[in-house]
Amino acid sequence: MKQIEVGIIMGSSSDAPIMRQAIEVLNKFEVGYEFSVVSAHRSPQKMFEYATTAEERGLKIIIAGAGGAAHLPGMVAAITTLPVIGVPIKSSNSLDGWDSLLSIVQMPGDIPVATVGVNGARNAGLLAVQILAANNSTLKQMLTQLKKDNYDKVSKQNETLDSFA
Amino acid sequence: MKQIEVGIIMGSSSDAPIMRQAIEVLNKFEVGYEFSVVSAHRSPQKMFEYATTAEERGLKIIIAGAGGAAHLPGMVAAITTLPVIGVPIKSSNSLDGWDSLLSIVQMPGDIPVATVGVNGARNAGLLAVQILAANNSTLKQMLTQLKKDNYDKVSKQNETLDSFA
Amino acid sequence: MKQIEVGIIMGSSSDAPIMRQAIEVLNKFEVGYEFSVVSAHRSPQKMFEYATTAEERGLKIIIAGAGGAAHLPGMVAAITTLPVIGVPIKSSNSLDGWDSLLSIVQMPGDIPVATVGVNGARNAGLLAVQILAANNSTLKQMLTQLKKDNYDKVSKQNETLDSFA
Amino acid sequence: MKQIEVGIIMGSSSDAPIMRQAIEVLNKFEVGYEFSVVSAHRSPQKMFEYATTAEERGLKIIIAGAGGAAHLPGMVAAITTLPVIGVPIKSSNSLDGWDSLLSIVQMPGDIPVATVGVNGARNAGLLAVQILAANNSTLKQMLTQLKKDNYDKVSKQNETLDSFA
Amino acid sequence: MKQIEVGIIMGSSSDAPIMRQAIEVLNKFEVGYEFSVVSAHRSPQKMFEYATTAEERGLKIIIAGAGGAAHLPGMVAAITTLPVIGVPIKSSNSLDGWDSLLSIVQMPGDIPVATVGVNGARNAGLLAVQILAANNSTLKQMLTQLKKDNYDKVSKQNETLDSFA
Amino acid sequence: MKQIEVGIIMGSSSDAPIMRQAIEVLNKFEVGYEFSVVSAHRSPQKMFEYATTAEERGLKIIIAGAGGAAHLPGMVAAITTLPVIGVPIKSSNSLDGWDSLLSIVQMPGDIPVATVGVNGARNAGLLAVQILAANNSTLKQMLTQLKKDNYDKVSKQNETLDSFA
Amino acid sequence: MKQIEVGIIMGSSSDAPIMRQAIEVLNKFEVGYEFSVVSAHRSPQKMFEYATTAEERGLKIIIAGAGGAAHLPGMVAAITTLPVIGVPIKSSNSLDGWDSLLSIVQMPGDIPVATVGVNGARNAGLLAVQILAANNSTLKQMLTQLKKDNYDKVSKQNETLDSFA
Amino acid sequence: MKQIEVGIIMGSSSDAPIMRQAIEVLNKFEVGYEFSVVSAHRSPQKMFEYATTAEERGLKIIIAGAGGAAHLPGMVAAITTLPVIGVPIKSSNSLDGWDSLLSIVQMPGDIPVATVGVNGARNAGLLAVQILAANNSTLKQMLTQLKKDNYDKVSKQNETLDSFA
Repeated sequence: MKQIEVGIIMGSSSDAPIMRQAIEVLNKFEVGYEFSVVSAHRSPQKMFEYATTAEERGLKIIIAGAGGAAHLPGMVAAITTLPVIGVPIKSSNSLDGWDSLLSIVQMPGDIPVATVGVNGARNAGLLAVQILAANNSTLKQMLTQLKKDNYDKVSKQNETLDSFA
Repeated sequence: MKQIEVGIIMGSSSDAPIMRQAIEVLNKFEVGYEFSVVSAHRSPQKMFEYATTAEERGLKIIIAGAGGAAHLPGMVAAITTLPVIGVPIKSSNSLDGWDSLLSIVQMPGDIPVATVGVNGARNAGLLAVQILAANNSTLKQMLTQLKKDNYDKVSKQNETLDSFA
Repeated sequence: MKQIEVGIIMGSSSDAPIMRQAIEVLNKFEVGYEFSVVSAHRSPQKMFEYATTAEERGLKIIIAGAGGAAHLPGMVAAITTLPVIGVPIKSSNSLDGWDSLLSIVQMPGDIPVATVGVNGARNAGLLAVQILAANNSTLKQMLTQLKKDNYDKVSKQNETLDSFA
Repeated sequence: MKQIEVGIIMGSSSDAPIMRQAIEVLNKFEVGYEFSVVSAHRSPQKMFEYATTAEERGLKIIIAGAGGAAHLPGMVAAITTLPVIGVPIKSSNSLDGWDSLLSIVQMPGDIPVATVGVNGARNAGLLAVQILAANNSTLKQMLTQLKKDNYDKVSKQNETLDSFA
Repeated sequence: MKQIEVGIIMGSSSDAPIMRQAIEVLNKFEVGYEFSVVSAHRSPQKMFEYATTAEERGLKIIIAGAGGAAHLPGMVAAITTLPVIGVPIKSSNSLDGWDSLLSIVQMPGDIPVATVGVNGARNAGLLAVQILAANNSTLKQMLTQLKKDNYDKVSKQNETLDSFA
Repeated sequence: MKQIEVGIIMGSSSDAPIMRQAIEVLNKFEVGYEFSVVSAHRSPQKMFEYATTAEERGLKIIIAGAGGAAHLPGMVAAITTLPVIGVPIKSSNSLDGWDSLLSIVQMPGDIPVATVGVNGARNAGLLAVQILAANNSTLKQMLTQLKKDNYDKVSKQNETLDSFA
Repeated sequence: MKQIEVGIIMGSSSDAPIMRQAIEVLNKFEVGYEFSVVSAHRSPQKMFEYATTAEERGLKIIIAGAGGAAHLPGMVAAITTLPVIGVPIKSSNSLDGWDSLLSIVQMPGDIPVATVGVNGARNAGLLAVQILAANNSTLKQMLTQLKKDNYDKVSKQNETLDSFA
Repeated sequence: MKQIEVGIIMGSSSDAPIMRQAIEVLNKFEVGYEFSVVSAHRSPQKMFEYATTAEERGLKIIIAGAGGAAHLPGMVAAITTLPVIGVPIKSSNSLDGWDSLLSIVQMPGDIPVATVGVNGARNAGLLAVQILAANNSTLKQMLTQLKKDNYDKVSKQNETLDSFA
């Protein structure tokens, strides 16, 4: 059974369709994770407890997604010293994602959140893998392979273009 | 000695020059207040404690100012059931106040923050007075007088215009 | 029969689908309200009369929603000393809600509008309840219960996630 | 003595340095005007009275300037049937003029405000002249001359460029 | 047969569904108009000729609508001394109307364009009527009636709300 | 067989529906082109090689389209001395095209990218033709004819308007 | 005496401090140019004549800079078939350059403007050189040398950093 | 002598005053770093080489800062599998940092850049420390101490407030 190294949290289950893209990446790289709804606004005590105990529970990285006035990533980063990756989510409540992005990325000094693009949960998962790969040569090889695969996909896309133009 | 009814908090002492404008209003209306730095990011435990105990300490309203990815007003509102007034602050760290405004006003359902304009601490103080005035006829009269005074100021501004044009 | 304590107004009946979310909250908390279309632009006299007589008619709080160049909340706040809660509405006429938000929140000194998020009528209703709860222990208890319910909902959302990931 | 045809109003005397640019244009074209502070927020009754009586007092056009959540032009337009020209003002309170612009230009159906650019009081004055010129051949000739003068200024600017490049 | 007093032009026939809203207003007020596609970019000579001859052909006002980098209103205003009303159009090419709005409203000194809201052709038509009404008591009465009708519509909207809440 | 003078590249095959609009223009003008996916992010080596060898392979102009944090046009411009035309693409990943536009147009000194509007691949193709036409009188004549055709289309659009209004 | 190949125009002499940066580039590359104020708004006839005769006067490229509702580049592009390079200028009248940028880059189909960054006149000059270099091996060599020089400058900047950090 | 674990690069030496804030953090935590100008646009080969060899040279993390159309962080992330931290810089060339932020954070799938706030180099340094601390208990203790120090600073700021209010 895999060790749980990445905690994926989100402010609401309505964020799950985006955040599951992080899971897909971690599954592919065979990295252990946990996945839960931890709302900074509706369950602040739980958020506090989650962030306070994250490290002792063995987590190495936390990925936090939220929309609108997104406080979850920044609040977790305020409590833990683990690296926190923030995913701005473009929800129906949000101003096209601008509010989510600014609420997450514009953190004050000494409380960084590693922010990815709007709805960028896939990249959040991959960033977690890149961080873990520092001490895991298997992950490092898989990351190198991913770059090769992406390179090959570009070549394949070009083959389909021939009939296109 | 006045009862402390309004808690004014801000994320950093650098926000004090703006937030003191709320104090000036409360002093003018003779409303008791307390004034402190409570950072959601640098002192999250203190923020939690502040918000949790606010009501039992006799506070009726909390005014919270913050800049950049401003989480203080929303997090306090997540914990207390007191009305929270949020003041977006345009700091040197912020994107001209846009980040502060969106981080405060775009709260999810069930966690309202009564947001005033960017750097609008004076209006935050006055909104607190308006809320308290529901049960305080003296405050109500003073608010009515303020409207009259403002009306008179408009008249006086017009007198100075004569030489202007 | 409940006393009418909250006046809910909106610039057009097309805003009703959003503004009814404030009604739902007030109904849940058994707070008396009135609900009407009062346009600052199409019925300015009515708006004036509404705002002027609001307090003597027993209202304690006014919730005003409007879209585009939204003047209703600010104009009502200019006339009454009651707290005014503004709801920016993202209408088909608006620039994705940016115009409504800025027209409502960026009020000048001494005329505050307690602004909630774009389409945030539910939060406007709840903010009104929070203000009224200062003198109503039943409301206060219900607000505390709401926070517990929301906390529980987060737990329940987590149960559904198990099958998801 | 000239007939007063244009009413210039502004929300605060702090707007006067911008709004006087409208006066300069009207003086140049020898169009009669009046100039006053009429705040929608601080003197709503006065604003109402001003707008209601504008036409009977002989005004043909109203120029209204305001900053931040600028309601003056739109509210005056809601009351009078005279053409209202709105001038968004970039004040220290405003979000670089974006709030003023959107609060003035994004009016709902049937309540137009003829909006000029941010701080565009000079153009507001000229637009008033263009409207009045429909029944005033002297103004029409002066407008034609202004275009010629501007054309000539371009030529003169070119002469100064020779030494520049 | 009615005299043609208003020229309505637009950059492309794809703007017609929006611009016809100006026609509906002018038809209602029985104001004579002409309606044509005059593109600043595709038919600049025609635009030049249109603007140059507008006044001698009897036009009193020009309404110009355009999307994206919208140059038509401003270019026509550069050539004629007639009042030009600009309608920013939110087309599929545009950045949600922001480009159209800024391209039209932010005119330099001495070349005003009376700008209405995004897709605000109805208001453009009404603004034209307001300008013409200065010398037409019938139009003036109709404008007063329109305000009354809008006031009545607000009352009627309130009747429908009873069943709503 | 036509000489290949224009290289059209894009970051992903998902950009092809937009970028093919450039092809349509080049086909119409009978300008030789090549068309391929060259991703700055997924195939940086290929991008480098493409840009490095572009001139020796006979290309005279490169058209590069990309969305989101669009680096392809600017990176190619950093490597080659050929003129590079950048097409910001509004993809599902992008913030309505604002990110693509700013990532392409705001290049630092000495590395220009000739940027066209969001999704403006058709204009990118035409700009390439305009550049090539300097040494090709046939292209020059065709460009002149295109302007005439567009002028005529405006006239035809007017005929269809008659039934419209 | 050098042949005049590039026409540099701007809307106002106040744009000259920015636009002279294009001149500096052309001087360095020894490309002949002319430099003049041609305002689309104040001298539309002159703008028309300039654009109409540009090609027969031997110009190969036009660089046009303008601020605010910047119409000059697009209008010139509407008239001539020469490539037009647009420079958005951040003037005191503009909304921080956003209006200038959108007014220039968001052109409709068939009327491209090759837009550079805000205040990017230096890049406009260099883009003109890149276009002319297609038929001028000296320019091509100089462009290659410029890239080498810039590469070397990066190395030199690194030397200064040693004492810095 | 400390091992070099963090590579700090920036697009221009003009970015150094901001980027040195990352150095200060790394010095404080006694983490080895290298610091150099590596421009994606002016020295693309060097950027390529830097990114390609980063890992074999022992780097574990790259911090890259850039302004305007900021391509450096994303391009380095395209080449290396190391985690890349991006710092958007608000330069005189930029649109108040909006262009830098969007150019860095809005990366496509599989190429994450861990983005911090505008001018947030201090947070970039700290994020690097957080990542390295996973395998370094000394760093972990220092991070814990930093949180305590920040908590204490909040207390000290409160002492100074007493004289303030």
